[in-house]
Amino acid sequence: MDTAGVAAALGLEPWRLEGALKRKTVFHVRDFQPPYLVFKKDVSHVERGTAVFLGEGITAVRGFPKIRRAFYLEPMVEASFGREVAVEEKMNGYNVRAFSMDGRVLAVTRGGYVCPYTTSKLAPLLEEFLAGHDYVVCGEAVGTENPYAVHRYPEAGGFAFFVFDLREKATGRALPVRERNRLLEDYGIPAVRLFGIYPREVCAREVFAILEDLASEDREGVVLKDPEMTLPPIKYTTSRTNTSDLRYAFRFPYDYGRDFFFSRIIREGYQAVEMEEDDAALRERARRLGESILLPMVETIRRVRAGENAEEEHRVRVGSLEELEALLEHLRQMGVECVLGEVWEEGEDYVAEIRRQKFRSSDKIRANLGLER
Amino acid sequence: MDTAGVAAALGLEPWRLEGALKRKTVFHVRDFQPPYLVFKKDVSHVERGTAVFLGEGITAVRGFPKIRRAFYLEPMVEASFGREVAVEEKMNGYNVRAFSMDGRVLAVTRGGYVCPYTTSKLAPLLEEFLAGHDYVVCGEAVGTENPYAVHRYPEAGGFAFFVFDLREKATGRALPVRERNRLLEDYGIPAVRLFGIYPREVCAREVFAILEDLASEDREGVVLKDPEMTLPPIKYTTSRTNTSDLRYAFRFPYDYGRDFFFSRIIREGYQAVEMEEDDAALRERARRLGESILLPMVETIRRVRAGENAEEEHRVRVGSLEELEALLEHLRQMGVECVLGEVWEEGEDYVAEIRRQKFRSSDKIRANLGLER
Repeated sequence: MDTAGVAAALGLEPWRLEGALKRKTVFHVRDFQPPYLVFKKDVSHVERGTAVFLGEGITAVRGFPKIRRAFYLEPMVEASFGREVAVEEKMNGYNVRAFSMDGRVLAVTRGGYVCPYTTSKLAPLLEEFLAGHDYVVCGEAVGTENPYAVHRYPEAGGFAFFVFDLREKATGRALPVRERNRLLEDYGIPAVRLFGIYPREVCAREVFAILEDLASEDREGVVLKDPEMTLPPIKYTTSRTNTSDLRYAFRFPYDYGRDFFFSRIIREGYQAVEMEEDDAALRERARRLGESILLPMVETIRRVRAGENAEEEHRVRVGSLEELEALLEHLRQMGVECVLGEVWEEGEDYVAEIRRQKFRSSDKIRANLGLER
Repeated sequence: MDTAGVAAALGLEPWRLEGALKRKTVFHVRDFQPPYLVFKKDVSHVERGTAVFLGEGITAVRGFPKIRRAFYLEPMVEASFGREVAVEEKMNGYNVRAFSMDGRVLAVTRGGYVCPYTTSKLAPLLEEFLAGHDYVVCGEAVGTENPYAVHRYPEAGGFAFFVFDLREKATGRALPVRERNRLLEDYGIPAVRLFGIYPREVCAREVFAILEDLASEDREGVVLKDPEMTLPPIKYTTSRTNTSDLRYAFRFPYDYGRDFFFSRIIREGYQAVEMEEDDAALRERARRLGESILLPMVETIRRVRAGENAEEEHRVRVGSLEELEALLEHLRQMGVECVLGEVWEEGEDYVAEIRRQKFRSSDKIRANLGLER
């Protein structure tokens, strides 16, 4: 491997990259053509999730930057933006970066691994655009048919993709919001919903009105952006999203970090204060919060007591059984333990059930129930 | 200091003790007569909270062992005990070890520091007993007047002490339950309530009946013990205790570890399952849980938004202003930041308000609200 060349492409000192490779902080994926490097943690200024492909040339795709969350919106908007703020929808799916490499479209998920499933879904949509533009297309893959994050969107069905950033491959610099949308529109590529570009002073008020509509449709929240994309964005989610995250994670209480729970719980406090809720509204919020924590936990404990495993069900749709095998291999490589359930044909497709195993929760609950494994 | 002598008294290799002293894992309290060592962490087999006094001789008081908690009671009782199980009340106060040292009664709190306040409360009660018995008297200090843990018990008033273990100073070995109670009764020293000694098979059922009564009186829970004290005990608490811990801790959300919250939340899941609750009972439990989390958090955020600090109010009662000064000095030494509030005379006593500052919560909330300090 041309370590010096990779280091140079990323602006890293070579000894840093070598050290990270030795410590496996940077992982060398050899069983892919071309082989590539995945940054599992930040190395100097190079973000976690960066992938570097060692093909004809060196193609580096920078990790997607973590977006800061607002707990209490208004003062943060005031402090974070210039004259105008673009308000876009934050969708509930999984983060994907798609790009062209030696004439091929590839898609990597948040961690920087190529996902064969996502790649085969996105290639037809993005081929033409990426042939002419050397951008990284950053977007949310959503819908009910994927092995990662399931959420029902009427406009998405089984699988859909909505772009939120076009970034220069080399620098990571993102196109301004309006320019991005014009370009996407030219190619018929869907973008996430842009609610509007508002003067900063009215932005928080607008956002709370938008969130009310989003909540009523069970949609996640918003990302606030500098329209020129020169300042870092901010995300903010509905209460319903917080509690539905909790409802989901408390099904597998020992598989999530304590911070995951705490962060989602504490948001509810700030939001209730910012929305100036009265006693009745607070109690209703508390009821929702409590149920989102207790009920899934009880369901899982009962399930394990009855001899079952804690597991998460997914459905995927593929064009061939080889594609399914490649996906399962990819999931195993990422450390996800899966059991393949039923597989059936639907028209030209195969539909398969995949059950992600949550061993930590199963084992820990079994131990606390005094059950042998 | 006679390091070799201390190491020998604890059965430690001298180099281990020297290393721990260097790393300040073992802290040398020099401004107390006699000076003493406090084990801030486990060192080999010597528990955190162990205190070693360097007086005329070396007096070692072993740390109080952590009691394992049952999440799901019945199988744990089955697996943990012999023919009989003693069920005692677990009270909500602070853990104290009192003992005699060079003819003086001293009281240390959980961490191993001498508390002058607790010492002066307990000396009259235990002097006679400790003059004749070289035990460590382990018990719960409860009531409304202390700087640590406030809970209202009708039988306790401002301050009371209930013994749960008599341990040999040298070995840490505890007296059997019946023997302990006979001895305490002879000296008129109150013990925690012993509900009964039950055959193991019926113990869990008895405990759930006892817990129902305890909950209705807002009392904490039970500790289950081998009557001979040869097997490790188990603790189990009411739902009301879990939620009241949460209600308290969520007043200061950034001052408690994430594990503190998680552990109390997850207990509710196991208890609901073991109690075979139906949908209505689950929803009622969820409502209580949600309110215990959200309402205190909202109250604190509002308070900080209004320019106040997050703080915890305590009241203490002392015989002299010197005693009050000694207590404040002790709290500072333990890293507790306090503000002294009002002080007034009541009969022969001084009553003082102490406000423990929760800077982490105040600062973090202020930052999230976009407020300058």
